[in-house]
Amino acid sequence: MSGQIQLEIDGPLARVILSHPGKFNAMSCAMWGALKNVFDDLQQRRDLRCVTLQGKGGHFCAGGDISEYAGFRFDADKLRHFHEVQVWGGLNAILQCDLPVIAQIEGNCMGAGLELASCCDIRIAGQSAQFGAPIAKLGFAMAPREAALVGRAVGDLTAREILLEAAVLNAALMQQRGFLNVVVPDVEVADTVLQRMRRLQGLAPQAARSHKQTLRALAAPSPAIERLVETAYDYANSAEHREGIEAFVAKRKPVFLS
Amino acid sequence: MSGQIQLEIDGPLARVILSHPGKFNAMSCAMWGALKNVFDDLQQRRDLRCVTLQGKGGHFCAGGDISEYAGFRFDADKLRHFHEVQVWGGLNAILQCDLPVIAQIEGNCMGAGLELASCCDIRIAGQSAQFGAPIAKLGFAMAPREAALVGRAVGDLTAREILLEAAVLNAALMQQRGFLNVVVPDVEVADTVLQRMRRLQGLAPQAARSHKQTLRALAAPSPAIERLVETAYDYANSAEHREGIEAFVAKRKPVFLS
Amino acid sequence: MSGQIQLEIDGPLARVILSHPGKFNAMSCAMWGALKNVFDDLQQRRDLRCVTLQGKGGHFCAGGDISEYAGFRFDADKLRHFHEVQVWGGLNAILQCDLPVIAQIEGNCMGAGLELASCCDIRIAGQSAQFGAPIAKLGFAMAPREAALVGRAVGDLTAREILLEAAVLNAALMQQRGFLNVVVPDVEVADTVLQRMRRLQGLAPQAARSHKQTLRALAAPSPAIERLVETAYDYANSAEHREGIEAFVAKRKPVFLS
Repeated sequence: MSGQIQLEIDGPLARVILSHPGKFNAMSCAMWGALKNVFDDLQQRRDLRCVTLQGKGGHFCAGGDISEYAGFRFDADKLRHFHEVQVWGGLNAILQCDLPVIAQIEGNCMGAGLELASCCDIRIAGQSAQFGAPIAKLGFAMAPREAALVGRAVGDLTAREILLEAAVLNAALMQQRGFLNVVVPDVEVADTVLQRMRRLQGLAPQAARSHKQTLRALAAPSPAIERLVETAYDYANSAEHREGIEAFVAKRKPVFLS
Repeated sequence: MSGQIQLEIDGPLARVILSHPGKFNAMSCAMWGALKNVFDDLQQRRDLRCVTLQGKGGHFCAGGDISEYAGFRFDADKLRHFHEVQVWGGLNAILQCDLPVIAQIEGNCMGAGLELASCCDIRIAGQSAQFGAPIAKLGFAMAPREAALVGRAVGDLTAREILLEAAVLNAALMQQRGFLNVVVPDVEVADTVLQRMRRLQGLAPQAARSHKQTLRALAAPSPAIERLVETAYDYANSAEHREGIEAFVAKRKPVFLS
Repeated sequence: MSGQIQLEIDGPLARVILSHPGKFNAMSCAMWGALKNVFDDLQQRRDLRCVTLQGKGGHFCAGGDISEYAGFRFDADKLRHFHEVQVWGGLNAILQCDLPVIAQIEGNCMGAGLELASCCDIRIAGQSAQFGAPIAKLGFAMAPREAALVGRAVGDLTAREILLEAAVLNAALMQQRGFLNVVVPDVEVADTVLQRMRRLQGLAPQAARSHKQTLRALAAPSPAIERLVETAYDYANSAEHREGIEAFVAKRKPVFLS
C-alpha cells in the first residue's frame, strides 16, 4: 500500500485523514485519486455539517511521494496527467465541497500539504508546524493552478518567498501573514479543532452551501492562469528537472546549470 | 421613526451619523434609503474634503433591523428588492463617493455594520469594538455583492471565519488581519478621527477624486459574483430561512435540519 | 549628470544601484530610461540567478526628481509620455524580469521608490526605512498602472491610507501590513540581503523563470485599470496640479481650492 485516505464520520462531523506511515503522509498517486473520491462522496451527503482534513501521526502532509516521481515526471504527457487530473482532481474536489472544511495542521505542511491546506476554509495549526514548498531545490516549478491556489491563500509576498527562495516558514509567521486563523500549542490542536467543529454543527447548512459558492466565485481562477497550463509541462524532460529529482533520490546536493 | 441618518457639516468636513436608538443603530429599510440620498448629495458638492461615517451612542451599527424581516424576507421578489435596491443602493452610494470616507468604529460593527465599514477608505476603531456577521445563525447567507465587498475588505481567511463560523472578532485581531488602520482606546476614537479629518482637509481634492476612481477600478466586482445574483434569493421561502428568523424573534435557539 | 543607474555583477549575482547624490536617489527621466535598459539586458543573460535593487548612500529612493517636473508635467501629452513610456517602461522592465529580484530598502522609500519596491519579489528593509507617496500634497494622483501596482503590493487598506491621506508609514507597520518579508536593524540590511542572494544562487533557474511567469499572470492588471489610462492625464494643466508643484518648488504650503 502506498498510503491511503481514511474517512471517519461521527454524526454530522466528518474527518478525512491522510495516512502514509513513514513518509509524513506524503501524497502518492493512489492517495490523490482516493482523496477525490472521498470528497465527491461527502459532497453528495446531506447529513453532514463540517469536514476536517488532517494527517496521521503528528504531521499534516510532507508533500508528494517523490519515490514515485521517476516513473512519470520526465514525460510531458504523463506529467500533465499527474498535475491536471490526479493532483488537481483531488484539490478541486475539496474546493468544490459545499461543507465548511477545517485544516488541522500539525508538523509538516509542505508542498502538496500546503496546497491541501490552501483548499480549506479554516486553518488551525500547532505552534511547531512548518510551511513551505521547496521545489526550487527539486528543479521544477509548482503547476500554474496549484501556484495560483497557494498564492491566493498565502498572499503574493509569501508565495514569492516560498516559491522563489524555497523558504520554510513557521506557524507564528504564517499566522502573521494571514494564512492561519489561530496557532495553539501542539497538544491543543485536536481539541481546538473539535470545538470549532461543534460550533459549526449548529449553524444553518443551506447558508453554508451558499457562502461556499460565493467565496468560490470570489476566488475564481483568472484566464491568465488557465493560459499558462498549455505549456506548463514542457519542462518534463529537461536536464534541470532530471537533476533535481535524481539528486534528491541520491541524497546529494543538486547542481543546476543555467 | 424606525431610525434615521443624520448629516452634520462643519466647513469642508461632513459627518454621516447612523441613529437608531435602542437598537445599536441597526439599519432599517428607511435608513438604507436615507443613506443613499445623503451620499448622493455629498457627491454633488464641491466644498467638502472628507466624510466620516459613524454611529450614535457608542456603537457603529449592529446589523439589519430584524424586527422588519418577517415583512419581506420570505418572498423572493421582495427579498431581492431589499438586497439589490435598498441595501446595495446605500452601500454603493458610499462606494461611488469621490470624497475620502473614514469609518469611526465604536462598539458593535456587525452584519450591515461590517458591510458599511467595508465601504470606507480609512477605518479607525476603539479597542472594545466587535466585528462579525453571524447570519449563519439566522438561516441565510450574505447576498453575493455584499459578501464580495466584505471579502475584499477583511480578506479571504477572515471572510470564511465570519461567514462560515459566525465568528465574532475583536478590534486587535481585525487590525492584525488588515481591516483596521489603527485601534485606539475607546475614549480616543473621536479625537483620532478628527485629527485625520483635519489632515485630509489640506490635501488636493482633484487628486483624491482621481485616486478614489482608480481604487474603485482595482476593487471592481468580478463577473462570477454578478452571475450569482440571479439565483441568490431563491432561498426566501425555505424552511431554514424561516426557522432562523423565527427563532431569533422568539429568542430561542434555532434548529436547522439539513 | 541628473542621476544614474549602476550595475555590479559578481558571478551569478547582480546589483542594480540607484544613484542620485544629494537627492536621496530621486528618479530623473534619464534614470528611468537607464533602468529599463539595465533590466532588459539582465533579462537576456543566462548566467545570472538573482538581482538586488538598492539605493546609494543609505536611502532606497525618495521619489521622482521634482526639479524636472515643471518642464513636462503641465502638458497632457508630455505627462502621458512620462508616465506611460518612461516610468512604466522602467517599472515594467523589472516586472518582466524572470530572475528573482530582491529590494534592499534603507531610508526613504517614497513615491517612485515605493513603486520600484513594489516590482520586487522579496523586500528586506532596515528598521528606520520610511514608506509613502505623499503626492496628494503635490496636487496630482498616482498614474493608474502605478497605483494598481502599489495597491496590489501594499494591500487595499494601506494603498488608501498612503494615497488619500498622504500617510508615511514606518518599516514595522509595513511589515505588519504584509509589504515586507523582514525588517532588520539598519546595519544588518546589506548582510541579510547577501545571505538571501547566496541562497537563491543554488536554486533551479528554469523553475524560477517559470514561477516568475506564473506569479506575473496572477498579478495581471485588470481591464478596468487599463480603461482609466485613457483620461488619466487630463489634469495636466489644471490649477490644482500647478499649485501643488509650484508650492513645493517654492517651499511653501499649497492651497487647494475645490
